[in-house]
Amino acid sequence: MEEAGITANQLIIQTYNKKGDFTLGSTGFIVIAIVTSLLSFALAAWLYGWVKEQPSSNEQIHRVSGYIRQGAATFLNKEYLVLAKFCGVCAVLIFIFLPSPIWKGHILLNFQMALAYIFGALISAAAGKIGIAVATIANAKTAEAAQKGIRLSFLCGFRGGAVMGMAVVGASLLGVALVFWLTGDTTTLLGFSFGASSLALFAKAGGGIFTKTADISADLVGKVELGIPEDDPRNPAVIADNVGDNVGDVAGMGADLFDSNVASMAAALVMGAALDQTMGGTKNVSMVFCYAALGLLASIIGVATARMGKNDNPTFALNSSTYVTTAIFAVLTAIATAVFHLEWRIWGASFVGLLVGVIIGIASDYFTDDAKKPVQLTAKASESGPAFTVLSGVSYGFISTLPALIGIAFSALISYKLCAPLGGDYAMFGISMAAVGMLSIVGMIISNDAYGPIVDNARGLAEMGDLGDDVIDITDSLDSAGNTVKAVTKGFAIGAAGLTVIALLGAFISEVNEAAVAKGLVAAGEKYLTGFDVMDPIVFFGMIIGSAIPAVFSAMLMLGVNRNAQRMVSEIHRQFREIPGLKEGKKDVIPEYDRCIELATTGSLHELIPAGLMTIIATLLVGFIGGVRAIGGFLTGNIISGLLLANFMSNAGGLWDNSKKYVESGHNGGKGSDAHKAAVIGDTVGDPFKDTAGPSINTQITVVSLIASLMASLFLTLSLL
Amino acid sequence: MEEAGITANQLIIQTYNKKGDFTLGSTGFIVIAIVTSLLSFALAAWLYGWVKEQPSSNEQIHRVSGYIRQGAATFLNKEYLVLAKFCGVCAVLIFIFLPSPIWKGHILLNFQMALAYIFGALISAAAGKIGIAVATIANAKTAEAAQKGIRLSFLCGFRGGAVMGMAVVGASLLGVALVFWLTGDTTTLLGFSFGASSLALFAKAGGGIFTKTADISADLVGKVELGIPEDDPRNPAVIADNVGDNVGDVAGMGADLFDSNVASMAAALVMGAALDQTMGGTKNVSMVFCYAALGLLASIIGVATARMGKNDNPTFALNSSTYVTTAIFAVLTAIATAVFHLEWRIWGASFVGLLVGVIIGIASDYFTDDAKKPVQLTAKASESGPAFTVLSGVSYGFISTLPALIGIAFSALISYKLCAPLGGDYAMFGISMAAVGMLSIVGMIISNDAYGPIVDNARGLAEMGDLGDDVIDITDSLDSAGNTVKAVTKGFAIGAAGLTVIALLGAFISEVNEAAVAKGLVAAGEKYLTGFDVMDPIVFFGMIIGSAIPAVFSAMLMLGVNRNAQRMVSEIHRQFREIPGLKEGKKDVIPEYDRCIELATTGSLHELIPAGLMTIIATLLVGFIGGVRAIGGFLTGNIISGLLLANFMSNAGGLWDNSKKYVESGHNGGKGSDAHKAAVIGDTVGDPFKDTAGPSINTQITVVSLIASLMASLFLTLSLL
Repeated sequence: MEEAGITANQLIIQTYNKKGDFTLGSTGFIVIAIVTSLLSFALAAWLYGWVKEQPSSNEQIHRVSGYIRQGAATFLNKEYLVLAKFCGVCAVLIFIFLPSPIWKGHILLNFQMALAYIFGALISAAAGKIGIAVATIANAKTAEAAQKGIRLSFLCGFRGGAVMGMAVVGASLLGVALVFWLTGDTTTLLGFSFGASSLALFAKAGGGIFTKTADISADLVGKVELGIPEDDPRNPAVIADNVGDNVGDVAGMGADLFDSNVASMAAALVMGAALDQTMGGTKNVSMVFCYAALGLLASIIGVATARMGKNDNPTFALNSSTYVTTAIFAVLTAIATAVFHLEWRIWGASFVGLLVGVIIGIASDYFTDDAKKPVQLTAKASESGPAFTVLSGVSYGFISTLPALIGIAFSALISYKLCAPLGGDYAMFGISMAAVGMLSIVGMIISNDAYGPIVDNARGLAEMGDLGDDVIDITDSLDSAGNTVKAVTKGFAIGAAGLTVIALLGAFISEVNEAAVAKGLVAAGEKYLTGFDVMDPIVFFGMIIGSAIPAVFSAMLMLGVNRNAQRMVSEIHRQFREIPGLKEGKKDVIPEYDRCIELATTGSLHELIPAGLMTIIATLLVGFIGGVRAIGGFLTGNIISGLLLANFMSNAGGLWDNSKKYVESGHNGGKGSDAHKAAVIGDTVGDPFKDTAGPSINTQITVVSLIASLMASLFLTLSLL
Repeated sequence: MEEAGITANQLIIQTYNKKGDFTLGSTGFIVIAIVTSLLSFALAAWLYGWVKEQPSSNEQIHRVSGYIRQGAATFLNKEYLVLAKFCGVCAVLIFIFLPSPIWKGHILLNFQMALAYIFGALISAAAGKIGIAVATIANAKTAEAAQKGIRLSFLCGFRGGAVMGMAVVGASLLGVALVFWLTGDTTTLLGFSFGASSLALFAKAGGGIFTKTADISADLVGKVELGIPEDDPRNPAVIADNVGDNVGDVAGMGADLFDSNVASMAAALVMGAALDQTMGGTKNVSMVFCYAALGLLASIIGVATARMGKNDNPTFALNSSTYVTTAIFAVLTAIATAVFHLEWRIWGASFVGLLVGVIIGIASDYFTDDAKKPVQLTAKASESGPAFTVLSGVSYGFISTLPALIGIAFSALISYKLCAPLGGDYAMFGISMAAVGMLSIVGMIISNDAYGPIVDNARGLAEMGDLGDDVIDITDSLDSAGNTVKAVTKGFAIGAAGLTVIALLGAFISEVNEAAVAKGLVAAGEKYLTGFDVMDPIVFFGMIIGSAIPAVFSAMLMLGVNRNAQRMVSEIHRQFREIPGLKEGKKDVIPEYDRCIELATTGSLHELIPAGLMTIIATLLVGFIGGVRAIGGFLTGNIISGLLLANFMSNAGGLWDNSKKYVESGHNGGKGSDAHKAAVIGDTVGDPFKDTAGPSINTQITVVSLIASLMASLFLTLSLL
């Protein structure tokens, strides 16, 4: 470890200038990365100011938006308190055991690792806080701006989301650059990444349980039982529902993509540094920072120039800014590759990653778009009853995994094959750069994604503030655009997570080999492991067990939502029963919103630890029983079933949501029909699929992969078999 | 190929008698296997006679049972006609291309392969026909016997099912023994196994779609809409429902286990023969036949002695005869191992397989038993509405995969480790013998499984024949025992399929290596492939795509059920609308049962080909694009996601079924409550999960594995990459 640290530090001081051409050392690229991230903070600050300056005058909206802001802040504070304790325990364990047990290694390295872990968790939490703070202001501004027309309203929603996008990506790049610059040690970087991931795992789970608890119970009692509209202020859970959009979709999703982004850079840097060490120079490390910085720059340009065109079509505006960012990234990296004499093959790999990300996004769009067959046939099936709605959704959800998995399979294969001619380890580095490429435009992706809950909230506020039908129509169309682009962004997130964990599998092997040399198991320069053979029974053993983990993990989250929502439904019933005049909508009768928020908070804090802990413990058990080969299999099984289930659940959930909306827009009997009731049941099943379990699986896979890499040295020496 | 054939033939003529102890050559063991299978036919014939001799006097039952018998026969004949065409095309393709293209190899070998394929398909079809023939007689006898008490009634149901059990296992052992004896070529044996599998794939799919089409639509219109009891003769779909139980559960399940049993023996023989060839002697081949024969013998004893004890508890009777058979098998094989000087380590492996099979069965029982938490909590969740029923069931279904997968992982690991000291290839042979061990008592398993639909039918007949409440109560308790033991037998079937396909992965490598030597790619005695490295991008590519296949396959089947049931629901509605007096239950007004049967038949014949074909084409595509390494990955991905989904779907379906019954027995509001309605929806979702898609996945994995082995030589030379 120490040797590696020193070597990497030396590398950074070197510059790469063989031919005397214009070039920069990795320090130069790190500085560029840091400057770019500061630029993104500047843009975030400007956008925040812009959003804040937008006028707001409606008293009712102001009040309700205050409730939401306060509810979100309360939940987040409580959640972070729980997580602080959890991370504290983890930090102590890391300090004692990692990178090597404190009584065997160097106390300073362990201290550095624990610090990096805490730093990762802190930055991730801070990005979540900032995102929530802006989103809960932007929602009211967006609602009121809708009175002046769709374009301004769109801009409010988009720019509010973009603050989150810029903050998250800036923070992840800044964090990675600083940790690498200061320590020069890629293992410490994995510790930083693990800090971000472990926070994301619980933030996503906690937020996901909160949001669906509130959403499901609000819908069940409000829409299904009483037949009152969504976002009706009489519904005691309506504020909790809006709070949930923020803590689940804004903070949770931000933590998720923060984590994926850091993990993809960390994986690429682990392999890049290993390559640099073998080959001399700092070319590969430089390339990672260069591409990551250009990705952020492309997102900055994309965000700054995004606005709605003359066609007043918000979906078009969001998608076209995504594609523009993609194109900018491709051009910028091509220029950089030419100017700095980087490898064109690796440029190709990252471009393939980006391209496949777009393709996966389009494919998931097909399965969730209400202009396409799957959604319409599911709506049609709803006419025969809810069982058919569920069966249709499950079936199309299963089928939807095929294009995404084919996309991941081909992008991994092509980027590997493209880079293989550069030499053995370049091939895996190529896969990690494909992941970096796919995530390059993550700033734009997060902006689009955070736009969703803001305009969703705005729609609710417009209704609660009595802004009139025209305004509600505008916010409705903004909201529906949010749902549509969500499919594309989720496809990106899952695809990127897939490539990242493949790269992390490579990083794991690097770590094992490094540890094996350090422990004298093999001579320096030799490899202890080159891969994992499926026919090796230990690998197979790990693989079979690893494949069950994402299923059990998502089941535990869904059962959490289930239990929590049942409690909440009883609370809503109680309020309607006990608060006189509430059901009838008497003026000045206000439900006890805070009781519902409190219930959702307590419940989700109670449910958020077990699932994540199970994952971590399972990994440790398999590692200490079967050793590094069992863990290699475990990761493989985990990746395979994780990608399958994440795609399935996200897409099925989106499909049910949109087929409910399709029926509501007047098809198959329209609102109030039996088909509608069936479609609402489908939507309810889909809620925790798409917003709790599905997206959390991404983080779960990443966490397991990072633990494996971090514990590589311990698993190597301390396993039973 | 030819060399291998000749060598294997020579081996068979040799006998193994190193120490001069009493021993038999493999021919001797093959003869024993054939004799045992004839013994099982004799028992089947006797049981058939016994069942047929039971009195039947009730005119109404006689008439209805006649409808069912005729409906089942009609469906089966039409299905076999479609499959005959399909198998004919396959046989021609096999003749042209396998084991090597006809213009390159030996026409006689190709002819032998095509014949073996047809033979496999024919035997499988014949076993299905026999099973149906008996089951559709035994149902009426069981109903009438219930008038004389539960013990006789139980015996009718069990012995009716046992005819199927004895016929299937006898036929599979006889077929394998004959093919191996006559050709001595293990590749031809794979062709025979593929014949059985390809028939099973479509029979399972067709029967599964038929049965759930009828079941779901009968329930939806009858129970949910009109509130008339299950099996009410007014319901036009009621006969189709009973026909479905037979064609789906008896014929389909029989074909499935026939296929698993043949495949496990084939895999063990491929590896055993390869070992024998290297080591000299015929010890390993002999061992496979010895154990398979003893397994059948144990089942024969178990079946012949099974009867209900004084406690009148049918579940206890079924389970205890399973455990008795298990014990007999363990003792018999131990004796044989001692007498014939076989390897104790391999005995250990097969014993581990059997033991784990029992454990998996007990674990799946936990998730589907209404005395345990999962079923009860799902019933409780139903009080909050159908979405919660579905979410609960999906969650517990996901969790239920963990013990089964851990069981498979440990049994593979332990049997490998047990046999590894015998030498390299013995380890994989150990896994295949664990599968043989797990399937050794398959005769008993099938008997128990076929008992289910017989007593289910009997319950319906007792209702339709007005035999009175006492008789209905007896058949009810027999029926519920059938559902309970089903969980255990399904656990066995999935576990065994898991081990078999792992063994088939080993068989695939053997086939590739043999082909590589034949094509001069490596020298004789050397290995072209020893395993599949996950880090090899081609393997990874195949693995990711392979993991999507079981999901897409089950989706296609479920969509088939969905479409078909929707058509059937309209037909039932039409009959109730157009036939005067039907709804009111006027005497002598009979619905048009045959229209429903015809609709289910046409629909399922229409839906049964695409899903199976997709699987086969995907395998060929991946093989011809990526070659043998991609196929190795493809099989691995297929196994992992297949085991996961098969377990999930079977257990979730069983759980929903039993939580509906739990509510119906008076819990959580009982019949007619909202919780009951929700539970019925859960059951409807679970129907195609557990009876169409879930169990078909087993066959799907086996088919893919067999194609891979059969095409090994072609994939080796004709791939793109």
